[in-house]
Amino acid sequence: MPNSVDLNCDMGESFGMYTIGADEQLMPYITSANIACGAHAGDPAVMDRTVRLAKENDVAVGAHPGLPDLAGFGRRMMDVAPEEVYQMVVYQIGALQAFCKVHNVEMQHVKPHGALYNVAAKNRDTADAVARAVHDVNDELVLFGLAGSKLLTAGKQTDLQVASEIFADRTYQADGSLTPRQQPDALIENADDAVRQVERILRTGNVRAVTGEDVTIVADTICVHGDGAQAAVFAGKLRTALQADGIAIKAISSGGFN
Amino acid sequence: MPNSVDLNCDMGESFGMYTIGADEQLMPYITSANIACGAHAGDPAVMDRTVRLAKENDVAVGAHPGLPDLAGFGRRMMDVAPEEVYQMVVYQIGALQAFCKVHNVEMQHVKPHGALYNVAAKNRDTADAVARAVHDVNDELVLFGLAGSKLLTAGKQTDLQVASEIFADRTYQADGSLTPRQQPDALIENADDAVRQVERILRTGNVRAVTGEDVTIVADTICVHGDGAQAAVFAGKLRTALQADGIAIKAISSGGFN
Amino acid sequence: MPNSVDLNCDMGESFGMYTIGADEQLMPYITSANIACGAHAGDPAVMDRTVRLAKENDVAVGAHPGLPDLAGFGRRMMDVAPEEVYQMVVYQIGALQAFCKVHNVEMQHVKPHGALYNVAAKNRDTADAVARAVHDVNDELVLFGLAGSKLLTAGKQTDLQVASEIFADRTYQADGSLTPRQQPDALIENADDAVRQVERILRTGNVRAVTGEDVTIVADTICVHGDGAQAAVFAGKLRTALQADGIAIKAISSGGFN
Amino acid sequence: MPNSVDLNCDMGESFGMYTIGADEQLMPYITSANIACGAHAGDPAVMDRTVRLAKENDVAVGAHPGLPDLAGFGRRMMDVAPEEVYQMVVYQIGALQAFCKVHNVEMQHVKPHGALYNVAAKNRDTADAVARAVHDVNDELVLFGLAGSKLLTAGKQTDLQVASEIFADRTYQADGSLTPRQQPDALIENADDAVRQVERILRTGNVRAVTGEDVTIVADTICVHGDGAQAAVFAGKLRTALQADGIAIKAISSGGFN
Repeated sequence: MPNSVDLNCDMGESFGMYTIGADEQLMPYITSANIACGAHAGDPAVMDRTVRLAKENDVAVGAHPGLPDLAGFGRRMMDVAPEEVYQMVVYQIGALQAFCKVHNVEMQHVKPHGALYNVAAKNRDTADAVARAVHDVNDELVLFGLAGSKLLTAGKQTDLQVASEIFADRTYQADGSLTPRQQPDALIENADDAVRQVERILRTGNVRAVTGEDVTIVADTICVHGDGAQAAVFAGKLRTALQADGIAIKAISSGGFN
Repeated sequence: MPNSVDLNCDMGESFGMYTIGADEQLMPYITSANIACGAHAGDPAVMDRTVRLAKENDVAVGAHPGLPDLAGFGRRMMDVAPEEVYQMVVYQIGALQAFCKVHNVEMQHVKPHGALYNVAAKNRDTADAVARAVHDVNDELVLFGLAGSKLLTAGKQTDLQVASEIFADRTYQADGSLTPRQQPDALIENADDAVRQVERILRTGNVRAVTGEDVTIVADTICVHGDGAQAAVFAGKLRTALQADGIAIKAISSGGFN
Repeated sequence: MPNSVDLNCDMGESFGMYTIGADEQLMPYITSANIACGAHAGDPAVMDRTVRLAKENDVAVGAHPGLPDLAGFGRRMMDVAPEEVYQMVVYQIGALQAFCKVHNVEMQHVKPHGALYNVAAKNRDTADAVARAVHDVNDELVLFGLAGSKLLTAGKQTDLQVASEIFADRTYQADGSLTPRQQPDALIENADDAVRQVERILRTGNVRAVTGEDVTIVADTICVHGDGAQAAVFAGKLRTALQADGIAIKAISSGGFN
Repeated sequence: MPNSVDLNCDMGESFGMYTIGADEQLMPYITSANIACGAHAGDPAVMDRTVRLAKENDVAVGAHPGLPDLAGFGRRMMDVAPEEVYQMVVYQIGALQAFCKVHNVEMQHVKPHGALYNVAAKNRDTADAVARAVHDVNDELVLFGLAGSKLLTAGKQTDLQVASEIFADRTYQADGSLTPRQQPDALIENADDAVRQVERILRTGNVRAVTGEDVTIVADTICVHGDGAQAAVFAGKLRTALQADGIAIKAISSGGFN
């Protein structure tokens, strides 16, 4: 069992008059906030108040860059060249960094969003572009990526500190990838089952794939979903269970890595 | 006569496949580039290459934040609250600052664009919002504003260094404001006349209004337009004339203020 | 008392992953739906399903064109020229008309949104641009506008059928305009008071201004707000009260005008 | 040899202050204009003046719908579901149809743009979605698609009239597809060679692939590129050559099909 683990959540994904996510309800339960940067979601006003909210809750701030596709919420794959990926990630980190400066907060990490996260997990050129962008803007930022992904490999080779991310409520394939959302068994609907999956990963270093195999997996940070009425309830339940297991819930930057 | 003056120009206003401005032709003649930040114009790719181009030409880099209105090129007045102005300026400066970091360039200044520039010249709340945003992101940035404008007043009261801007090819009203573009005598079409207006301002500290009065005006930096086939020709002509007058053409940050 | 009145509501203002409004809950209570057209809100998918939803509920469909400002939900005044207004209204009506064709629905009306509605109420050039756009695309469309507004005047002079709109839950000034939202007494919070205001207008043809005067007002259609948990409850209450008064709730196109 | 052929060109791809294409220079040489509809390019003002320009030049008007990606000019492949494709095409045709109504012009055709055109050529679900959208909005529209593409097959099966398109200045693969732009021999740089390719296709019904094979190809309409200084010169040269061959240059709707 590790001494501590980080709980991260996507935040600041509202836009103008539109609200998504229960940011205020969830913030007390997490330790790292991935804040949208105005491309797939978020806008300057939302970023401003989300950084403030994170600070008030003593939650570490990270940039959550995504594809420039508000209509698709950054979830539709787009054929963007690595150079474009580099530039859009530089831009978005910079925009959030300005709000960190304004609120006197040190940015902790970067976690790509949606299709960018998924492509960077599997495509090395995209992964390198993301890692290089993070490095060039601020080489003290921690790069969050899917456990076992090419994004983590790229981050390490770019001399970035990386955090290996696991998902509480998603199932895994035998190769360590997430079961695609379109498949019927992609989600763990039952909160207790999701908590148990996390506890098992932390205790054994393995996740049980849908096909039955045990797959080695590193858990530096756990992704908690931010949408839906039960999001805060689940985050609280997970937090309580882990603390009962003797695991401190700490941001990556203050907790160290496994 | 001052020892030196700064020549600034709006740059990086292309977008995607769309090109505006003769940036490569003009860059050799100017000393400060106001680079669009992705709101009224510009995108991450354009910002990246424009910062690089400025650096190669030893031109100081500034942010050129504008209203979020690409279709109107930031020239249509929008009723945005001061808090929104603050947030959009913070966002845009931050985005450009990341490209400065990537290219190892120190950002020198901020000059608002279009309708934001015009409203900040006359409306103190908007001016304060812009000045406060610049200050909060980086209090060493120089704030460029129209000579005699409320933006300069706001900048000074926010403890920012300010640069008073004059226009070579625009005529002035008796109150020191620019003649609105819709009026027939708004523009000085003849390049020699435009050069003479600048020389007279630098020599006497006065500009002759369209109604005949002399108006006191401070010229720290001269705006050179970047669009149109003759833009680079005019910039070269102005530069040559001023150097012949014994005035060094230097960026604000290296030239000092009058 | 009129024999019938129309109840209209803004609909289809969601965007991508973002939801606004309780369209499904409200649709059964109204007779005319003003459907956003992708500028201030809405997108092709939302428009498609909202036209279908209106048809299923036997609700008349109208276009709800707005300023191209998704971030500001079309509520921020923008300085757009009448020609631009004409073009954006033509565009948006056309886009919705295609979904009407696809669902075999006849478009009934056009009601401008937000800042465009407000400016068209007071500025005759803008009003004329809107009316001309509606007329040129389809001269059988009914133009909805604020009771007593220049938009209605413009519509009549363009040979359009117009519908004079009143608001149930907004208070009125002595000149017949709505009390601006920023003022403390702008809204009628109590549902029964709102119902009573409507009943009094329908019975007497007058609205009592906040300053006490009676102002003549024509009520062809009543605007029901679509957002907030109580929206459908209020719409149901209003509908029931009016029906109890012997007034049929009918769409403009089927009910005739007062 | 056919009696007549159609020359089409992408038009109206400017946006706001940004200009792309030499529409005024090219319009006199073509017979069908594919007008952008505000997604990948174009805006209401550009659409208005482009429909007017086409009418003045007696050029048939078509919609040129694209992916909602202004930054990428609709050339970046996006993973959009067929239902989304259907909805975006309905929307865009409708928007242009309103400008046709305003200018009293009958819309002739629809030709998808960029990545949408390419995906619809190869992916049957996308092709069906496009064809169904065209059909449902106006089943008298002619669907333009790449010679031999699935889009043409889908169009025929949806009971649409289709036009098989060839490219003057692009080379072909042995399977009848265009050589991808990234490959060195994708473009025919020499204007005379391009003219000769067109003449040979019209005369023999075959195109010579880069690998030497002859491939059967139907040429109802020839795509002329609209960008670059030489675009109008080339269009004029092609037109003159074909007329010298005794082939009338006529819009699809007035010329009939081969």
